[in-house]
Amino acid sequence: MKIAILGAGVVGGGVFEVLNKNRGVIAKRAGCEIEVSHILCRRPRPEHPAADLLRYSFEDIINDPEVSVIAECMGGITPAYDYVKRSLLAGKSVVTSNKELVAEHGRELCDIAEKMNLSFMFEAAVAGGIPVLRPICRCLAANEISSVVGILNGTTNYILTEMIRHGKSFNDALSEAQAKGFAEADPTADVMGIDAGRKICILADLCFGKEVKPKDVRTLGIDKISKVDIELARELGYRIKLLGQAMRTGPNSVTAFVAPTLISRSNPLSSVDGVQNAVRIKGDAVGEVLLTGPGAGALPTASAVTADIIDAVRGGTYMGYWPSEPGYVTDPEELSCRFMIRAEAELSSLQAILPDATVVHSRSGDFALLTAYTSEKELRSRLSEISLISIYRVLD
Amino acid sequence: MKIAILGAGVVGGGVFEVLNKNRGVIAKRAGCEIEVSHILCRRPRPEHPAADLLRYSFEDIINDPEVSVIAECMGGITPAYDYVKRSLLAGKSVVTSNKELVAEHGRELCDIAEKMNLSFMFEAAVAGGIPVLRPICRCLAANEISSVVGILNGTTNYILTEMIRHGKSFNDALSEAQAKGFAEADPTADVMGIDAGRKICILADLCFGKEVKPKDVRTLGIDKISKVDIELARELGYRIKLLGQAMRTGPNSVTAFVAPTLISRSNPLSSVDGVQNAVRIKGDAVGEVLLTGPGAGALPTASAVTADIIDAVRGGTYMGYWPSEPGYVTDPEELSCRFMIRAEAELSSLQAILPDATVVHSRSGDFALLTAYTSEKELRSRLSEISLISIYRVLD
Repeated sequence: MKIAILGAGVVGGGVFEVLNKNRGVIAKRAGCEIEVSHILCRRPRPEHPAADLLRYSFEDIINDPEVSVIAECMGGITPAYDYVKRSLLAGKSVVTSNKELVAEHGRELCDIAEKMNLSFMFEAAVAGGIPVLRPICRCLAANEISSVVGILNGTTNYILTEMIRHGKSFNDALSEAQAKGFAEADPTADVMGIDAGRKICILADLCFGKEVKPKDVRTLGIDKISKVDIELARELGYRIKLLGQAMRTGPNSVTAFVAPTLISRSNPLSSVDGVQNAVRIKGDAVGEVLLTGPGAGALPTASAVTADIIDAVRGGTYMGYWPSEPGYVTDPEELSCRFMIRAEAELSSLQAILPDATVVHSRSGDFALLTAYTSEKELRSRLSEISLISIYRVLD
Repeated sequence: MKIAILGAGVVGGGVFEVLNKNRGVIAKRAGCEIEVSHILCRRPRPEHPAADLLRYSFEDIINDPEVSVIAECMGGITPAYDYVKRSLLAGKSVVTSNKELVAEHGRELCDIAEKMNLSFMFEAAVAGGIPVLRPICRCLAANEISSVVGILNGTTNYILTEMIRHGKSFNDALSEAQAKGFAEADPTADVMGIDAGRKICILADLCFGKEVKPKDVRTLGIDKISKVDIELARELGYRIKLLGQAMRTGPNSVTAFVAPTLISRSNPLSSVDGVQNAVRIKGDAVGEVLLTGPGAGALPTASAVTADIIDAVRGGTYMGYWPSEPGYVTDPEELSCRFMIRAEAELSSLQAILPDATVVHSRSGDFALLTAYTSEKELRSRLSEISLISIYRVLD
């Protein structure tokens, strides 16, 4: 069985390495030998271990009738969307690690795959090497899922872990993450929650069965989190993590958002540190399951892409289908939860507005209030005269 | 699509409940309505919500050509083995929650399913509702798996959690577990590690690809764990959990065993408490993943059984095939790890034998030694003149 890899970077290189290293066990599980016959790359790479497989034009690949599975590991929308769509329309199954592509165009691509009776799979697009999407679609298929919550971005989790454990500032922790290769030179998509937003879209699509698009997901980043916020959260018994959350809000509505969130130290999600990722799913039959592991990196991501390749070779199918429906995604500001707030105001005047809130003080005299259950809309309306320094949701 | 459930007890009742409660979403995911047409039970149950579906003879079910999937939820070998085998040979797919059956006869039943081109699935047989077996077989299919470790029995984990958290004795914690329905009247299979041993067999079969049978698995129970052991482990920074472990020991050999084991408090497995289960898998590409959730109970187990039913209805396949091979399973006494030991001897004479060991004292004057890396064989040989009180492996 011949396959092509689009992209010779970190993920594409990892897939090539895993397919070679574990050739024997992969052939056994796939039912046949898997041979990489083309690797698409942008520029000549004479140092590549399989330089004879390198191609510089997608046309060389799509026109090869022997290629039956294409692994897209380029990332980004252009030209990945065009290549993936044309591959499916040409009768080739596609697997991809590209969360941006799946979040934006997954519905259309799954639709084409279904009509063409081909595989379109993207286990690696969410939480890297952790088995997440198949467990949701297959193992939890008997459940009505009520919520899915995850630490979905390794870069921000690394930065926050350094801030929490070692008292570093956001900027110092970011610089260190960049030096170690855990953050990109332009870290915007990670730091601002955009990457996690794409992943929570995909999770929401599969968990709840209708389309949630990145534009529907309100994302807050971690760049405004201060040492004082972290210290006050600790005093209250919480850690701050960047969470993607999606949940049902009614019989035919959901909400999805990304925000730095307080997690109780007794919740196992609060101990998922460094570049680890984790996804917690609640279903009406199963209760709560937590899946934890490496959320990024060449080999963990390649583990998931290659699993999809094996499944595609065996004739696995697409991962689901989620129609689009206007009004289905609602604003999270109506959701009830507790909040931690800091404000530029006298404690007494805040307590007059929020008499049920718990107050906590830092060693340096700062304070925060942990509110009773309320919605963000209600809270902001009550505090409309107050200048807020920070506001965090608390995970239940 | 018509299916039959064998067993009207906790699991069978749960499967019937989930199929009814989530009928809509299940039909969508299965691609057709799933209708239970028979429920096999041993005695009349006039109070049953679907009394008209109750059957008292398996012949009524196997002879119904309209039944295409059978969910075996009886447990035990007799008559489950006979019924499952005959069902497959009669051309009906089978799903089961029966770990004893799969551990003892899984190889033969998978072989029949493969030859008959039918489904034979058993996601619920290990770790209840937690997605474990598909993640191993499908999502981690590109990996050479090196080890699988799990908290695989909710009853013993509940008892140990009560002993650790509340200082209860084993007998008190067991009585309480029985009163709460977390332990059976005859708790032998749980307490002595036999149930966990069956589950580690199934995990080893799927992770490493050849048969490991219950008779190959050395099992130790939790009945000898004392409060002093727990206190000394705590002083050293560990918790004691009943773990099933299986790992490669050579190019063509594995070992598998069940034993109370010390886990560092910094390891997330040490915080999996109460009736929760967890499975940690190490693969050469993915690194380490940890899957956590409810390991037992009617609805979590039914969640997994029903997922298998949906897959079988969609034409899913068997979960793998693992040939048997003499000499493949080796004795764990050669494995190198650290140990905590307590002995009826002077500390000075123990230190003379184990000069590298760390010593820890309890408040009441008891002491334990944490050894350097060694094998159990080597350790027992060095301590052959000493009367041991307890000996525990330490998880790496």
